[in-house]
Amino acid sequence: MAYEFKATRRVEFSDTDMAGIMHFSNFFRFMETAEHGFFRSLGFSIAPEPSETAVGWPRVHAQCDFKAPLRFEDMVEIHLLVREKKSKALSYLFKFSRINSGLPMEVARGTVTVVCVRHEGAKMTACAIPKTVADKIDQAPPEALL
Amino acid sequence: MAYEFKATRRVEFSDTDMAGIMHFSNFFRFMETAEHGFFRSLGFSIAPEPSETAVGWPRVHAQCDFKAPLRFEDMVEIHLLVREKKSKALSYLFKFSRINSGLPMEVARGTVTVVCVRHEGAKMTACAIPKTVADKIDQAPPEALL
Amino acid sequence: MAYEFKATRRVEFSDTDMAGIMHFSNFFRFMETAEHGFFRSLGFSIAPEPSETAVGWPRVHAQCDFKAPLRFEDMVEIHLLVREKKSKALSYLFKFSRINSGLPMEVARGTVTVVCVRHEGAKMTACAIPKTVADKIDQAPPEALL
Amino acid sequence: MAYEFKATRRVEFSDTDMAGIMHFSNFFRFMETAEHGFFRSLGFSIAPEPSETAVGWPRVHAQCDFKAPLRFEDMVEIHLLVREKKSKALSYLFKFSRINSGLPMEVARGTVTVVCVRHEGAKMTACAIPKTVADKIDQAPPEALL
Repeated sequence: MAYEFKATRRVEFSDTDMAGIMHFSNFFRFMETAEHGFFRSLGFSIAPEPSETAVGWPRVHAQCDFKAPLRFEDMVEIHLLVREKKSKALSYLFKFSRINSGLPMEVARGTVTVVCVRHEGAKMTACAIPKTVADKIDQAPPEALL
Repeated sequence: MAYEFKATRRVEFSDTDMAGIMHFSNFFRFMETAEHGFFRSLGFSIAPEPSETAVGWPRVHAQCDFKAPLRFEDMVEIHLLVREKKSKALSYLFKFSRINSGLPMEVARGTVTVVCVRHEGAKMTACAIPKTVADKIDQAPPEALL
Repeated sequence: MAYEFKATRRVEFSDTDMAGIMHFSNFFRFMETAEHGFFRSLGFSIAPEPSETAVGWPRVHAQCDFKAPLRFEDMVEIHLLVREKKSKALSYLFKFSRINSGLPMEVARGTVTVVCVRHEGAKMTACAIPKTVADKIDQAPPEALL
Repeated sequence: MAYEFKATRRVEFSDTDMAGIMHFSNFFRFMETAEHGFFRSLGFSIAPEPSETAVGWPRVHAQCDFKAPLRFEDMVEIHLLVREKKSKALSYLFKFSRINSGLPMEVARGTVTVVCVRHEGAKMTACAIPKTVADKIDQAPPEALL
């Protein structure tokens, strides 16, 4: 069972804005990169082939606290931790660190809560996380979330 | 003095993702559209010409609760309300409503907190909101924030 | 029958990059805004409800010549003209003009070629443009394309 | 002297659109990833610290031919080749290949032309490519561009 994953991305030119720093909306895209990498690390895809048993993971809440800006060409580590595992929902914590050189520096911290749903036509209904998925995911120990 | 602003945007094809709905990161871009429209409505630009007195507004916190998805071609009203006005910071509430036809339906609600800063080279220092700006901005009455 | 459409958009903060101008990839998004507005002006949607007769419009070619930059808060007119109408494909010309005040100034010019396809599972096959659509679209007169 | 560079990126969920494939505008962002990686491979940054001698590289032309779609989680190789080197401009060819497994498959091919400029306030003037940069860049042999 796993409760964490680390993804790294470089800040691209198109991620920046005229203030010379990464646009804040892109922190949320980077969180998703870590979330999907976490799923792949468990042997799943977040977006499986359509099938009767396929589930989706819409976001119900997302937030981020920004402590320091990220700039073009910065290397960023996005450390995902499973904050809470419920029968139909998962909540992730994301710690962003700039890791260019020297000591890593935490620059932002975010949270995303997703619910497991089945699609019936255009309608989505919350459902239990499939056992094959739930069996591989654990909550992070409280001290890891500090 | 003003405490609210309403912007409207249409969901573009490039705002959607393979789940067929607006990608959640774009709600944060739409919040910014309303924020900047609010500033223009007061006679300011959020990004004035560089000068000794120019201030910037980096985000320190952003969050969003998603209640229903937005889809391609949906018309969206983003209703900005000033949640809190401090000497060096502003906090906004954003209510997203789908307004295609019939009754508007609230689909999401977000918050962004920005600090007023001056740039000294690459360094940013929090500073008091310029009086010309502060004089035009009011906190929304509590009942408007419900 | 119609051969042109004019859309307007404002350059958002999130459309800019650290060079202080609109990122070049966003010109292509703006072209699509005009293309989809053109379809709506004809009574269609580019992305109809899935059905046996629904067609898609993947891009096979896109290009843009950039003459002058667009900046935050610039108002932009995107003038779409139908450059070429074939049995299975459409080619559009897009003229971008900054229309803040004074005389409009052309800042860029682009072309997009789309093919009409039907989806069979994951496979796309080129097909004739549906008569209901083709009957409403005309090629622009040569002098309009200068 | 160098005339090529290979970058790889994975297609992220936020790169897709409701058609289930990578949005075409993102091919242009991916080209830029390869361009900036090429510069880093030569020991430069495309966006150096502001200085009297710093140059910028605005795009004057960009185009792309799309042969097959890219989908979520596809691994993509972006092969940059220097198509043309002039005194004040560079033109790049980009070959996109899906490299998930098995034989790589070319899915798109693009071109970007950039001019070397100096900034004088808000004004940009074309200038000769700095010798330190020009000395490291070569045109690709014609057969590599096929």
